[in-house]
Amino acid sequence: MLETIFSHRSIRKYKSTPVPERILEEILLAGSRASTTGNMQVYSIIVTKDENLRKQLWEAHFKQDMVLQAPVHLTFCADFNRFTRWCEQRKASPGYDNFLSFFTAAIDALLASQNVALAAESNGLGICYLGTATYMADRIVEILELPKMVVPVTCMVTGYPDEEPGLTDRLPMDGIIHKEKYNDYLPTDIDRIYVEKEESQQTRELLVLNKKETLAQIFTDNRYTEKDNIHFSQHFLKTVVKQGFSRNH
Amino acid sequence: MLETIFSHRSIRKYKSTPVPERILEEILLAGSRASTTGNMQVYSIIVTKDENLRKQLWEAHFKQDMVLQAPVHLTFCADFNRFTRWCEQRKASPGYDNFLSFFTAAIDALLASQNVALAAESNGLGICYLGTATYMADRIVEILELPKMVVPVTCMVTGYPDEEPGLTDRLPMDGIIHKEKYNDYLPTDIDRIYVEKEESQQTRELLVLNKKETLAQIFTDNRYTEKDNIHFSQHFLKTVVKQGFSRNH
Repeated sequence: MLETIFSHRSIRKYKSTPVPERILEEILLAGSRASTTGNMQVYSIIVTKDENLRKQLWEAHFKQDMVLQAPVHLTFCADFNRFTRWCEQRKASPGYDNFLSFFTAAIDALLASQNVALAAESNGLGICYLGTATYMADRIVEILELPKMVVPVTCMVTGYPDEEPGLTDRLPMDGIIHKEKYNDYLPTDIDRIYVEKEESQQTRELLVLNKKETLAQIFTDNRYTEKDNIHFSQHFLKTVVKQGFSRNH
Repeated sequence: MLETIFSHRSIRKYKSTPVPERILEEILLAGSRASTTGNMQVYSIIVTKDENLRKQLWEAHFKQDMVLQAPVHLTFCADFNRFTRWCEQRKASPGYDNFLSFFTAAIDALLASQNVALAAESNGLGICYLGTATYMADRIVEILELPKMVVPVTCMVTGYPDEEPGLTDRLPMDGIIHKEKYNDYLPTDIDRIYVEKEESQQTRELLVLNKKETLAQIFTDNRYTEKDNIHFSQHFLKTVVKQGFSRNH
């Protein structure tokens, strides 16, 4: 268990070898064992192997190579459609067309996704989460024909790794853990927490390559810009509302 | 790994035995190894052991016994505060005061939480997620003194189990998995997916106890009512906005 967790790295190059059906079934079953709100299981997992569909998903996910390479594409959705249909068929009045219900369903989907990731890795597969799932939620709704009350919250590609990257650096633990209450950061705390990341060889190379003065500027100016954030934020919120979680808007 | 995943059950009764510091550190470190968007680690984990604070949290979490019993209370927060402060200290212009950034940070927090849950269980601890974290987010912000850009997205209690519950039932896998695209449910699908849950001994007893005709009615009338959903949904959304992820509202 712990060995799998501590050796996780995202894999961005895959072999074309298919994932055996037995293994795929096991990792999905592992997903279903995660905690779920009130045991409602308000999520769905869409397993896409079809090349044409994966090509459409690749285009949606900013044409990242790994999305075409990896033989299996998993889309984790917040899903109150199934539960709502069940209520309606059983003389019960569902009231899940609101933001809280969307978020509850998103939690279910995300906890399941992490179980799937770890179960995949413990079977020798590699995985990579796709942050573009929320950016491009409206397009994914179209490609995968998601009905009302279903919103994609994360995607993951999986397959056999064709690279062996090292572990990714992380901030020191006291940078993300707070004892008892939240202890807000002083400027000296921020300096201490980020110093190792900022002084790494990788950062030095990135600064030269991107002609930037600080690593933070690479995030705000290149990777996660205010302009993109606002644009995709509006789209994602619109999708959440359009898909029926609209009561609070 | 898989054994831990497949033997998960939520624990609602705890011994007073404290969690050794070494184990607590290991399970939190396990959380930090989960995938995180762009390696930004935009989450925080608050570890609360203090009895007075845990009593306040217990009141917030609908006075569920286990929240008082379990010696460790973990609050997983979407956190763009640390990252934003770093940007501001490094001549970079952060633009993370929007819904997408909140959701991105929530994903980070939730993936980390599931690693923590599994690492805890593989160390012999029990865990239980608290769905009330989002319902009572505004109160948790007060108790734990969360600054702007920090929102609690889930809580978890952990400690040594004082009960051995059986595995919880789950829907059949074809009820939550879709092949290639989303295959919407026909009325006959809904009947098939829910039949086992509906015909269980536990359900029969619940129907008598609650004087209801269907299990779905127990969810819509008692457990997750429209009225509560709307109330808590408005509160949660207000908290997300109040904490600074307000650009889209």
